Amino acid sequence: MKWYINSGVDSDVVVSSRIRLARNLDELPFPNSMDRESSEKVIDAVRSALEKYGNESFHYLDMEKVSRLETSVLLEDHLVSREFCEQSGTHKMLITDETSNLAVMLNEEDHIRIQTIYAGFAINEAYERANAIDDCITKGVNLAFDETLGYLTSCPTNLGTGLRASVMLHLPAISASGYIKSLISLMTKIGLTVRGLYGEYSEAKGQLYQLSNQVTLGICEKDTLEKLTSAVLQIAAKERELRKTLSLEENISFQDKLWRSYGVLVSGRKMTADEAAELISNVRLGAQSGIIPALAEKNLIKLLIEIMPAHMIERNNEASDSDIRDKLRADYIREKMR
Amino acid sequence: MKWYINSGVDSDVVVSSRIRLARNLDELPFPNSMDRESSEKVIDAVRSALEKYGNESFHYLDMEKVSRLETSVLLEDHLVSREFCEQSGTHKMLITDETSNLAVMLNEEDHIRIQTIYAGFAINEAYERANAIDDCITKGVNLAFDETLGYLTSCPTNLGTGLRASVMLHLPAISASGYIKSLISLMTKIGLTVRGLYGEYSEAKGQLYQLSNQVTLGICEKDTLEKLTSAVLQIAAKERELRKTLSLEENISFQDKLWRSYGVLVSGRKMTADEAAELISNVRLGAQSGIIPALAEKNLIKLLIEIMPAHMIERNNEASDSDIRDKLRADYIREKMR
Repeated sequence: MKWYINSGVDSDVVVSSRIRLARNLDELPFPNSMDRESSEKVIDAVRSALEKYGNESFHYLDMEKVSRLETSVLLEDHLVSREFCEQSGTHKMLITDETSNLAVMLNEEDHIRIQTIYAGFAINEAYERANAIDDCITKGVNLAFDETLGYLTSCPTNLGTGLRASVMLHLPAISASGYIKSLISLMTKIGLTVRGLYGEYSEAKGQLYQLSNQVTLGICEKDTLEKLTSAVLQIAAKERELRKTLSLEENISFQDKLWRSYGVLVSGRKMTADEAAELISNVRLGAQSGIIPALAEKNLIKLLIEIMPAHMIERNNEASDSDIRDKLRADYIREKMR
Repeated sequence: MKWYINSGVDSDVVVSSRIRLARNLDELPFPNSMDRESSEKVIDAVRSALEKYGNESFHYLDMEKVSRLETSVLLEDHLVSREFCEQSGTHKMLITDETSNLAVMLNEEDHIRIQTIYAGFAINEAYERANAIDDCITKGVNLAFDETLGYLTSCPTNLGTGLRASVMLHLPAISASGYIKSLISLMTKIGLTVRGLYGEYSEAKGQLYQLSNQVTLGICEKDTLEKLTSAVLQIAAKERELRKTLSLEENISFQDKLWRSYGVLVSGRKMTADEAAELISNVRLGAQSGIIPALAEKNLIKLLIEIMPAHMIERNNEASDSDIRDKLRADYIREKMR
């Protein structure tokens, strides 16, 4: 099961909530300077700890045995980072659970990166889950921890809590109204970061933005989550208010734009992922503003991920050719939108 | 009833067939230099002749009593010329019949312009009907006729037969393939003219072109019609051949273009007449190439005319405002395309 099968709380604006805890074993060098043997030690230690202290069954995915296609699917699902997919001298492993809400990356930038991802606004739930996994691991291994600094991490930006709490926000009305730039600068001032859908340097495809904490040092986990929550609630209120204004019956241009996106989305015979993301974003806004009421219950985030290249190829190998993929994508969208 | 309610023979390419015969009374100056009294004489003479020799009932429309809106509707229906709608010192009258296939303009550029218009390719039928009306009028009035030159007309370009035979062609494939320029120059060489939808200086909206004879002097009516017919058959064959090639299953881009036009046409919430004409043209091509089979029987030419400004205002006075008209147009199209 994938996390995006459900839609969750406040999902009109908050698509997903993610927690990432960075941890390292105290007797081994960080992944960027360790040898293969050390990386095997990390895997063995974490695996033993989870099997001993975790009351559930985990899946262990040896990244050296995973095909490039499967890797790309994991990437598009937001379960692994781009860095984790790259070849290196170290051995990497992904640990997941039955729900696919958990994805622990071993030997990425840090020895251990515990990640949880939930649909909708569920940052506390995600944190509790990550914390429980962290507890299991802590019982079994000695983590690099400094009484003053907190958790030691490969990159100093994660030092302290090692916590990155982030939410993926669908902000079409804020984008359309030109508020996004001032939102980004405001968030930066209060120690939060706004980025595009697929990480640090990516553009905001489909008006999807990631909001996360920037500071991990000198702040406790609780305060980090509270600060993020407070920002999310304010942004969501603004987004909803703007959607309401835009959706007013007399705003024909806005309705026209969303309906035309719908018309093209359900009629096109070939479509790039970028165009589809843009159209789906508009249609999702239409569905949630009551303009296209028939789609109110449609899981368009699921569709957005399912039409990404690797997911397309996973379903049908012919999609390896980009022209054929664009055709198959349009076919798939029409089928799912019926 | 309007001529475009039906679709007629060969209507995949030939939208309509029109005949115009220019005639003048021999004892009166041409309209551009006659007084009001003379124009009344023309009306009385033609009306008497039709009532005496025509075995049917005609409608007489005094153009001075027709509103500007009704005038524009007639113009959009292709029943009158732009010149005929303009104010002048002379009295103008339009004579129509029950079928609306006939429209005789009195005191336009010539005293009498007998026009017939039929859906599809029916140029001979249109000529026979115009000829029958001409016969009636000839019995009742003395026409300006010269044994050597033929019918005398206000403008020398109509001298001789006074006949203008024209067909409205839907040539999306020839346009898309870039053949239209060479077609125009070829037609000019054989004495035919290609023009846009609404006459001499208009652009080809919706890929609709008028093909007509240029020469009226030193050629008989039969030859004029035969020459036009021969050209139409060749153009139609070329257009059909190109449509077939474009419609090949592997031409996804073409199908995509037509389907997207359909998607926008049935989804938009506001639309200008120009955009609608373009989209309807694409959709019509799709319907007739078997790409959008559900629309094969749809009369899209009727729709194309019904969404023009005056027709919109005639149905709903609110459409006088162009923003409201664009909204009502989109609503009307969606209703008719359902």
